[in-house]
Amino acid sequence: MRVFNFSAGPAALPESVLTQAAAEMLDWRGTGMSVMEMSHRGKEFMGIAAKAEADLRTLLAIPDDYSVLLLQGGAIAENAIVPMNLLGRKTSADYVNTGEWSKKSIKEARKYCAVRIAASSEDTNFTSVPALGTWQLDRNAAYVHICTNETIGGIEYQWTPETGEVPLVADMSSHILSRVVNVSKYGVIYGGAQKNVGPAGLTLVIVRNDLLDRALPITPSAFHWKEQAAADSMVNTPPTYAIYIAGLVFEWLQTQGGVKAIEKKNIAKAALLYDYLDTTEFYRAPARKIDRSRMNVVFHLSDESLDSEFLVGAKAAGMDQLKGHRAVGGMRASIYNAMPFEGVRTLVDYMKQFEQMYG
Amino acid sequence: MRVFNFSAGPAALPESVLTQAAAEMLDWRGTGMSVMEMSHRGKEFMGIAAKAEADLRTLLAIPDDYSVLLLQGGAIAENAIVPMNLLGRKTSADYVNTGEWSKKSIKEARKYCAVRIAASSEDTNFTSVPALGTWQLDRNAAYVHICTNETIGGIEYQWTPETGEVPLVADMSSHILSRVVNVSKYGVIYGGAQKNVGPAGLTLVIVRNDLLDRALPITPSAFHWKEQAAADSMVNTPPTYAIYIAGLVFEWLQTQGGVKAIEKKNIAKAALLYDYLDTTEFYRAPARKIDRSRMNVVFHLSDESLDSEFLVGAKAAGMDQLKGHRAVGGMRASIYNAMPFEGVRTLVDYMKQFEQMYG
Repeated sequence: MRVFNFSAGPAALPESVLTQAAAEMLDWRGTGMSVMEMSHRGKEFMGIAAKAEADLRTLLAIPDDYSVLLLQGGAIAENAIVPMNLLGRKTSADYVNTGEWSKKSIKEARKYCAVRIAASSEDTNFTSVPALGTWQLDRNAAYVHICTNETIGGIEYQWTPETGEVPLVADMSSHILSRVVNVSKYGVIYGGAQKNVGPAGLTLVIVRNDLLDRALPITPSAFHWKEQAAADSMVNTPPTYAIYIAGLVFEWLQTQGGVKAIEKKNIAKAALLYDYLDTTEFYRAPARKIDRSRMNVVFHLSDESLDSEFLVGAKAAGMDQLKGHRAVGGMRASIYNAMPFEGVRTLVDYMKQFEQMYG
Repeated sequence: MRVFNFSAGPAALPESVLTQAAAEMLDWRGTGMSVMEMSHRGKEFMGIAAKAEADLRTLLAIPDDYSVLLLQGGAIAENAIVPMNLLGRKTSADYVNTGEWSKKSIKEARKYCAVRIAASSEDTNFTSVPALGTWQLDRNAAYVHICTNETIGGIEYQWTPETGEVPLVADMSSHILSRVVNVSKYGVIYGGAQKNVGPAGLTLVIVRNDLLDRALPITPSAFHWKEQAAADSMVNTPPTYAIYIAGLVFEWLQTQGGVKAIEKKNIAKAALLYDYLDTTEFYRAPARKIDRSRMNVVFHLSDESLDSEFLVGAKAAGMDQLKGHRAVGGMRASIYNAMPFEGVRTLVDYMKQFEQMYG
């Protein structure tokens, strides 16, 4: 029996995607082989990869002057790869610090350049996104880096910063494809796949083509965006099976009505949970209301001594991975695209019952 | 119907592994979730990863003073990551050039240090491995790099070089686990998974622990061997599903009797093919006999105008991906661990028939 899986990532995938992957595992459409066994340069896999890229372009309405790269490494590798590819002759970059993932990006960037912290929400313990008016941007920065959804603090940009001539770079790992994004406002969007896209091990990079000529000489070929763009992401062997699964997820998203339709569902799912949290003092949700993440709902039992009973009861009721990140404790319900409304309703019903029992 | 898949990589996997993966796709052992959906920090996946590492250690008899890392990036990324991690205060490294994969390693290393070509088989068009007596090693080199099996030229080291105090680093992507290796002769062994290990997107690094303190400050954390060793390869989210499949392949290898037993089978498979090639002038095999690869059997039809008929007939007879690499043309039969003896016999029978028909 399948559980409702609230993991922050790797995370739940649509059941129909897994069913199809299982059915095609030994013989993909009469080829007599698994997608895992295909040469990445054969016409079958090239077709799978091209279709995945085309569907992603449609889903996110990616303009033609952007390259879409399907790489290895994950977002933490990309944190280093971003400055390698974007610094050119510049010596500094601006970073906005909104929590754990921002901090990791900053740590990596410091290996390659001076990092200016343009804004930070550390004073709120990373429960908010700093208002644009407080940002101190440097017009000589190579780029401005933001993390648009922080899974640990449970906060999300509900707006797009304006950074003028300086390219805006966003780590969207944990909410890409969950909401409509105006790609043309960004120089680079990147993310690990393991939330809304597919299995861990695949990294998406969406980069405006005029930014492709700025790589440092130390950039490895496998992570050199210009070389990868010219080679259709096949400078090295791409993570073929992960790309195939991502392609199935993109097809599933289309059957759901695309990103606009899934965003509506995500809004409804998050509202169900936050609206209940706002009615009770048995639980508390630390994130500032206007910055609340639709993807990662962080909450605490006011009486933390009940945490383990809460988790045991949830598991018995078919809900798994609700334990909060060790950095903040408490609970976290990650409700990405693949989490059905039914899963969130089951959680809220359980939370109400638990409150009645122990409140 | 499954075909005999002679792809050079990504390559055929054991059918029993795929069958098990398909059966467990929606619910891994009563957890109610796919391995793809599991948190990498949960006890289920941690167990899968620990078992995979332990089995790999057993299969290769890896000494305790070596770390085993399960990373992302592939061997071409690792070509850059090797010098980043090993140069320390040294400014040069020795490389042996035996073909296309060596050349890629050399190209990447030149971004970080001076590269000395200690030996090369370019004069034989990369159809041989240079004898150790001809190598000009520099005792001040940070390391000596070799590629122990070249898939394009179809040559393989049948011996282990002695490099004294200078650590020996080997890209074993295309023959790791196909033969017994004395790991203690190497400082570092690395390889992409997509030949004998599992799906593309997983990279193995086996590194002697005393070499872990030599990383350059520009090394990304995701590829920093010391940090990854300390974090059980979880500095970033590892390619979880690829690790799971690799673990199933390791279990399958154990049921085959381990590496020593599979090596015997590989010797027999390669002999069947090469022995036939040695009896005919209808086909020719360019690799020097003593350096012939057991994994990648490169051969040409003496009359190349018959190439496409050969391939069409092979496909009709259930054999796929026999076309040679574009750099050398002709044919290539990649016969990794998962290729059954039956597949090679079917190929040799077909080659004989084809010769009778057109010879």
